[in-house]
Amino acid sequence: VAVDSQGAAGTGRLETFSDGVFAIAITLLILEIVPPHDPGRLAHELLQLWPSYLAYAVSFLTIGIMWVNHHDVFRLVGRTDRLFLFLNTVLLLCIAFVPFPTAVLGDFIRSGEGRGTAAVFFAGTFTVTAIVYNVFWRYAASGRRLIAPAAADADVQAVTRSYLVGPVVYAIATAVGFASAWASVAICALLSLSYALPASRWLTRRS
Amino acid sequence: VAVDSQGAAGTGRLETFSDGVFAIAITLLILEIVPPHDPGRLAHELLQLWPSYLAYAVSFLTIGIMWVNHHDVFRLVGRTDRLFLFLNTVLLLCIAFVPFPTAVLGDFIRSGEGRGTAAVFFAGTFTVTAIVYNVFWRYAASGRRLIAPAAADADVQAVTRSYLVGPVVYAIATAVGFASAWASVAICALLSLSYALPASRWLTRRS
Amino acid sequence: VAVDSQGAAGTGRLETFSDGVFAIAITLLILEIVPPHDPGRLAHELLQLWPSYLAYAVSFLTIGIMWVNHHDVFRLVGRTDRLFLFLNTVLLLCIAFVPFPTAVLGDFIRSGEGRGTAAVFFAGTFTVTAIVYNVFWRYAASGRRLIAPAAADADVQAVTRSYLVGPVVYAIATAVGFASAWASVAICALLSLSYALPASRWLTRRS
Amino acid sequence: VAVDSQGAAGTGRLETFSDGVFAIAITLLILEIVPPHDPGRLAHELLQLWPSYLAYAVSFLTIGIMWVNHHDVFRLVGRTDRLFLFLNTVLLLCIAFVPFPTAVLGDFIRSGEGRGTAAVFFAGTFTVTAIVYNVFWRYAASGRRLIAPAAADADVQAVTRSYLVGPVVYAIATAVGFASAWASVAICALLSLSYALPASRWLTRRS
Repeated sequence: VAVDSQGAAGTGRLETFSDGVFAIAITLLILEIVPPHDPGRLAHELLQLWPSYLAYAVSFLTIGIMWVNHHDVFRLVGRTDRLFLFLNTVLLLCIAFVPFPTAVLGDFIRSGEGRGTAAVFFAGTFTVTAIVYNVFWRYAASGRRLIAPAAADADVQAVTRSYLVGPVVYAIATAVGFASAWASVAICALLSLSYALPASRWLTRRS
Repeated sequence: VAVDSQGAAGTGRLETFSDGVFAIAITLLILEIVPPHDPGRLAHELLQLWPSYLAYAVSFLTIGIMWVNHHDVFRLVGRTDRLFLFLNTVLLLCIAFVPFPTAVLGDFIRSGEGRGTAAVFFAGTFTVTAIVYNVFWRYAASGRRLIAPAAADADVQAVTRSYLVGPVVYAIATAVGFASAWASVAICALLSLSYALPASRWLTRRS
Repeated sequence: VAVDSQGAAGTGRLETFSDGVFAIAITLLILEIVPPHDPGRLAHELLQLWPSYLAYAVSFLTIGIMWVNHHDVFRLVGRTDRLFLFLNTVLLLCIAFVPFPTAVLGDFIRSGEGRGTAAVFFAGTFTVTAIVYNVFWRYAASGRRLIAPAAADADVQAVTRSYLVGPVVYAIATAVGFASAWASVAICALLSLSYALPASRWLTRRS
Repeated sequence: VAVDSQGAAGTGRLETFSDGVFAIAITLLILEIVPPHDPGRLAHELLQLWPSYLAYAVSFLTIGIMWVNHHDVFRLVGRTDRLFLFLNTVLLLCIAFVPFPTAVLGDFIRSGEGRGTAAVFFAGTFTVTAIVYNVFWRYAASGRRLIAPAAADADVQAVTRSYLVGPVVYAIATAVGFASAWASVAICALLSLSYALPASRWLTRRS
């Protein structure tokens, strides 16, 4: 890996390592779903697992979108420094944690008692992750500290604005979870589906 | 990652990320096989696990072929957009799900009661995956939306035709599973083995 | 991925995918070691797990060496075809299977009854893998079918010769396992350690 | 992969493979945390798991820093040989082992009896890993055996000096673990957090 004249390392191997963590965290989600045990009721038991499938899908799409966002950061970041490497590691620590609240949500969303706690834990994890994402990005973007010379200011500011959506929406989903677990999960699911819409701010930035 | 003049991102890091998910999903399959417990009958118990080895092999070869197909898509696709990224994520969601029906098949194929359900669930997962594959590809290919300028129309059309095989054969295997679990698994196994034959349509397209 | 004039695809993405499977299989080995449960005897129980540590180390080094060998194949192979892709997938299927016999060996090597079976299963898996390795390589090397034009015949023949060691030594280890489990594991361990010796045939080929 | 005129292979694919093992080991850490079972006390039980979260965070940051160090080695190393490949594999064997002592620490740090053993096992694993790191690096650096011609002697010596910190601090943490488990874990945590400080010797070397 080349080192530029200002002493900061390039981003190539960092991107590869981060991609690996995203890809593994997203694929490990399935290991949290445990096969049923009763052959006489297998079809019924497989259907009963639908909360785990739902939790799997929401977490998969959310990590997928966070990967796309991470990818976008590195279109604008041209170099790294030590604190940026540390913040990236803390961000990956949050991403790699996601399979655990996903398992908890799948296990307890049908349970009257544990449901609310599971939803708050699930949306809360995404809230913390989205906040870390903003700290990570703002460290790089502030005063164009680590931004590549070729990156336009308008693109940098568009990312800064767009990343504010995550902490706000996930904090709302976490608060809603105390009242209704299902509404909390629905907010998380809708946010990830919204990224597939062509008319959003996100494509605008890219075009 | 460079961005071309039409504002769509290149495919390099997307391929790397997708390769990671394929590689991890295919390797996690083995974790679903649980070691036996009885030392006095270890040889017998290891042999008794053969349905799990069979399920492992069929899923491994199937994911392997889907990886080759994914690889081929990116020989023809020159750029991505937001909806294509989303469809790719949904496709990876299906691929990463495969270890679960594989575990269910291995656990229940010898069981009189659960056998049919397990085979339908197994082949049904591949059916859904193959349908998502077609939607993913057709979105890129339709009107050459994301096709690289250098890609020949004949190659694009050959992929479109060849991808129709999957949904049809897997749908048949799923339907057959209601009558005979073994026949259903055999169809899935034969489809993956057929890709090794030199005289198939697939090599033809490549040459 | 570029396609050469003979219609066979290049090897770049295939190497990346295969590296992923090797890296994942080697890292999953640790998941097969289950933490002890008794706090009052934790030190004793951690020491009692030494057969699992041994099995972990032997499998780790063996997969590591197989990765180096795979790496070497692709220094000489210049292109792929459909059957080579299939053989590579079967080879990866064997590599990804290794965590299972490793877990079985760790669980049963101290058990009077299961010990022999576990060692035969362990060395037997490596025997099959080494045979598949030879089929895979000979398909590429036979008549220089997939060998890069720049590769020297002497290098190709040296690989062919050196790959014969694996099936022979592992077959001996498997046979020995019926008489002595410890001797069988020792043969597997010594073979992997032998690759670290500077004076072996292997470095000779490289220089 | 190209081979230079002295017969030693380049480092590209070795870096990719090693990155994969680091990324997988770091992401597997979460699988060692088992979801709670009692819906009526879910919030309480999730909070009770805090020792597992702590162990997860310390191991994640430690492996993250070891990855950065590994990355740095390959900024200076220009080629590999057989023994270096073997030492790299032994180093990865240590890295991939970390999820196991992490699970043991999370399970036993609140237990009066097992606590000390778990902390000694945890810090001891990092001690061994740090020693292997030094052997690995010194083999490459000694007499500039595998150092790239363009690398400055001052940079090589700075790495040699900075790598001495690990074995010493982790050996102290291991010894402290016999007296106080919490102090031992705190030393490990502080060492990983120290890498985020901008004024350390490490950034100095880079600038």
